[in-house]
Amino acid sequence: MVRAFEWLDDSSVLRMLDQTVLPIEERYLNVNTVDALVDAIVTLAVRGAPALGAVGAFGVAIAMRQAESEGWSEDRLVTEVDHLRQARPTAVNLSWGVDQAWAVAPQGYDAVVTRAKQVAAEDEAANRKLSKLGADWILARCQANAVRVVTHCNTGALATTAWGTAYGIIHELFDRSALISVFADETRPLLQGARLTSWELTQDGIPHVVEADGAASSTILSGKVDVAIIGADRIAANGDTANKIGSVALALACQRRGIPFVVAAPFSTVDLATESGNEIEIEQRDEAEVLGFAGVRTTPLSSVGFNPAFDVTPHDLISAIVTERGIVEPSAGKGRLSSLA
Amino acid sequence: MVRAFEWLDDSSVLRMLDQTVLPIEERYLNVNTVDALVDAIVTLAVRGAPALGAVGAFGVAIAMRQAESEGWSEDRLVTEVDHLRQARPTAVNLSWGVDQAWAVAPQGYDAVVTRAKQVAAEDEAANRKLSKLGADWILARCQANAVRVVTHCNTGALATTAWGTAYGIIHELFDRSALISVFADETRPLLQGARLTSWELTQDGIPHVVEADGAASSTILSGKVDVAIIGADRIAANGDTANKIGSVALALACQRRGIPFVVAAPFSTVDLATESGNEIEIEQRDEAEVLGFAGVRTTPLSSVGFNPAFDVTPHDLISAIVTERGIVEPSAGKGRLSSLA
Repeated sequence: MVRAFEWLDDSSVLRMLDQTVLPIEERYLNVNTVDALVDAIVTLAVRGAPALGAVGAFGVAIAMRQAESEGWSEDRLVTEVDHLRQARPTAVNLSWGVDQAWAVAPQGYDAVVTRAKQVAAEDEAANRKLSKLGADWILARCQANAVRVVTHCNTGALATTAWGTAYGIIHELFDRSALISVFADETRPLLQGARLTSWELTQDGIPHVVEADGAASSTILSGKVDVAIIGADRIAANGDTANKIGSVALALACQRRGIPFVVAAPFSTVDLATESGNEIEIEQRDEAEVLGFAGVRTTPLSSVGFNPAFDVTPHDLISAIVTERGIVEPSAGKGRLSSLA
Repeated sequence: MVRAFEWLDDSSVLRMLDQTVLPIEERYLNVNTVDALVDAIVTLAVRGAPALGAVGAFGVAIAMRQAESEGWSEDRLVTEVDHLRQARPTAVNLSWGVDQAWAVAPQGYDAVVTRAKQVAAEDEAANRKLSKLGADWILARCQANAVRVVTHCNTGALATTAWGTAYGIIHELFDRSALISVFADETRPLLQGARLTSWELTQDGIPHVVEADGAASSTILSGKVDVAIIGADRIAANGDTANKIGSVALALACQRRGIPFVVAAPFSTVDLATESGNEIEIEQRDEAEVLGFAGVRTTPLSSVGFNPAFDVTPHDLISAIVTERGIVEPSAGKGRLSSLA
């Protein structure tokens, strides 16, 4: 089974699949310093909101081990953990995972590792649970025995501790013989769909096509799919959802076509402290990512890039937010995220 | 001034800028056979609906010269001209331009060349006229002295005989000091926005940023632009507009945000014989274009690509269709394209 990362108890090393070189190469990184972990997070060697939760928790263990071996002061340790917490701003899971582990730091290194393992195990259990709930909801809503799905970015095992969120629902539908096919958006600028989702779909033997992000709207409007399913990096209390740039285009098209737009995420992605999408900080990434690809410059040297990593889908465009604790239906005004807390 | 192509009278050669290698290289192709011209059209060395109109007309002259030098039968000439006419199916301008020249073929080669030159000159004049009309309409509608624009694909001098359509309006606004900035979508899979529009904007000194196609919806929804302006490959009688894949995403976002979505095209792009968008044939291009990027494979070798070149924006999402003959406002139900004929 695909795993984005693995904790090596003996060496306090987080071993992770370097997602920047997939699918061309399966290369592993062995991370045992905060700097190396932050670098892996910033370069997207490891990515995906739920994965970042567990990685953040293990990162606290790495920081404590490094503090011990390098004789850090308590202040230094706090600073380093904070550095880790803020490596990427939009996904709430990273800071949440760091905080989960940091809370038990007074009980020592072993307690932190134990908590991090719990965070990872809970994420996998949540994904499997929400995938079943999501598949049930979609088949009922579409009144179909099998559906055609469009998805954006990567939300599979590579983006989580295991199994996946939106991808988990797709996998669950496939296991029930209730999946006809998947349209996977390539997801510019970093091509997580083309490189990672299509790789996972291939590994799992799930029929799919890869399309340019710009094709998603007409794929939906012309009736080629029955449902859109995406993950989330942060869900505000009112249901507004930050996810990979391009997601809201699918939501707008689904509304026009009258098909469901489904957000799938563990409840740890819900941030009840954030009232609406207006308050979600959107990470701006290096313009170089959009001015070229794979080292090939595609624009004039003087061109400037605009590269927001996420967009916000307003809750009224979201048919269902599927979590392991249950489902709310924002566009229909059914249910409240706070009641699942 | 940038020109996509130039007719060389002495040699009956169509000399064109090879747009597949821009902006890295400025290379020219000298085309004097139907096969070479069809190849240039299919590979997108020359592209853009209005440009294809004039290129198609000159192509008839090339075919006649070739028929003469190679001793083709009348049947063979008809077949070759038909081959040219069908090189790309979605843009109506190509077959329209071929037909314009073919209609005068009985009068001989010189008449065909003269007609092709007229087609080119009329396109440039149409572009300059519609650009003024479009700029007037946008400033009035936005009640602004200057606007921020988002555009998709390339509609400048490279896509037309000269000046441009949507790009022509942008240029006109810039010349009036009524343009604040341009968001140029990169336009996957072939990156006409990143490679060509940003190159033209750079040549013309127009401030701009390049964004991933997926960013366009949130750029619009978050209020970063005042208007979206695109070109067209075929406009049906009811106003439904086929344009580069990804265009309809901008239209959906504009509708939600309540800002105008403007289509700019010479009247030769209007196809009154096609009643609605449902009847427009959408060209499916080689999946390899979407399975890789700039020659680098980005997907597993077994992945399949889905690569429609165009989408259709329903007329009710279009605020204005700007032609040199006047403007209709489909979303407001004002005006009819047939009345401009």
